Amino acid sequence: MKSSNIKAVTHGVSLQDRWQKHGHKGGVLWFTGLSGSGKSTLAMALESTLFANKFEVFTLDGDNLRHGLNGNLGFSPQDRSENIRRAGEVASLFAQSGLLVITAFISPYVADRTRVRELVGDGFHEVHLDPGLATCEARDPKGLYKKARAGEISDFTGVSSPYEAPERPEVRIDTARQSIEQSVAQLVAYVEKVFRISDI
Amino acid sequence: MKSSNIKAVTHGVSLQDRWQKHGHKGGVLWFTGLSGSGKSTLAMALESTLFANKFEVFTLDGDNLRHGLNGNLGFSPQDRSENIRRAGEVASLFAQSGLLVITAFISPYVADRTRVRELVGDGFHEVHLDPGLATCEARDPKGLYKKARAGEISDFTGVSSPYEAPERPEVRIDTARQSIEQSVAQLVAYVEKVFRISDI
Repeated sequence: MKSSNIKAVTHGVSLQDRWQKHGHKGGVLWFTGLSGSGKSTLAMALESTLFANKFEVFTLDGDNLRHGLNGNLGFSPQDRSENIRRAGEVASLFAQSGLLVITAFISPYVADRTRVRELVGDGFHEVHLDPGLATCEARDPKGLYKKARAGEISDFTGVSSPYEAPERPEVRIDTARQSIEQSVAQLVAYVEKVFRISDI
Repeated sequence: MKSSNIKAVTHGVSLQDRWQKHGHKGGVLWFTGLSGSGKSTLAMALESTLFANKFEVFTLDGDNLRHGLNGNLGFSPQDRSENIRRAGEVASLFAQSGLLVITAFISPYVADRTRVRELVGDGFHEVHLDPGLATCEARDPKGLYKKARAGEISDFTGVSSPYEAPERPEVRIDTARQSIEQSVAQLVAYVEKVFRISDI
């Protein structure tokens, strides 16, 4: 930490106040999985459903974030870690504002995800989207696996860069066997159980 | 931009939907001013009042952010610019989630603030807290001016590092002449006028 002469300022509005206003706790649904595992698609569908169910919800997407905050990072192991560190810090800020934030990053390294889990605390819930590499590569929605196999992209997760699967994610979804609708239903049930504050 | 093979994903919930739900537009109230100008104090007081008035509001504070997202940055001109670039990107993400975000950063350089203004667009409103350097130095709530004058802190804005005042901020507040309550009232009136969506 280079910053010094810094003291944290207490917010005027407590987290409890924010939760009561929203009718649910804030926190982070951290999606992790290979390219093509359905992270962004499922995140956007879940966001729509939760918003319709009166949740304060927002999605942080790897693709979107890399255009802005993390636009000065590449795909080396060091840059990937910094990418996830920043994403985790932003997710934590959203959770502090009382929102339920869905994040959709490949986030291939256990150490990086563990650091975010420790930062966010109880509000962190890991969701592993795992249709298997073969399915992701067959889908190849952006044609990236093809380029990676051809050597046109280096450091591509699952091909030329490792993916470290979570051992004990809070939720595991086989997006090869389940439809998007089924996966959304599974996650909505989980969110209602874990985040909703009952009136009584 | 180092990132490639990236395409932006469309959110499932529109900004208009979020604004309608909240009863107000999202955006950024960007406080700028010297250390001791009252940014954090006023931000927290304003946040409390707006929350009580049913706004979805959150404060990003220079002190808080430097513990986390920007903890690996110092106070060189280059690091200050990167500090504000990241803060601006995060503020923009909050605005995209429909929140009204108050930011409290010294943000001494015109170029950095202009970049955030261009990023956020119409929702960006600059608030210059300007009690004058003499008042800030007399207050010296953290004892930093004293240390800076003694040469114990380098690159200290207003003493050994420049502060470039905004020429045309949306709001200018003389926090030496006004009480905190008066300044909050001035800003609440501005926010109600600019951000509130009327029912009719």
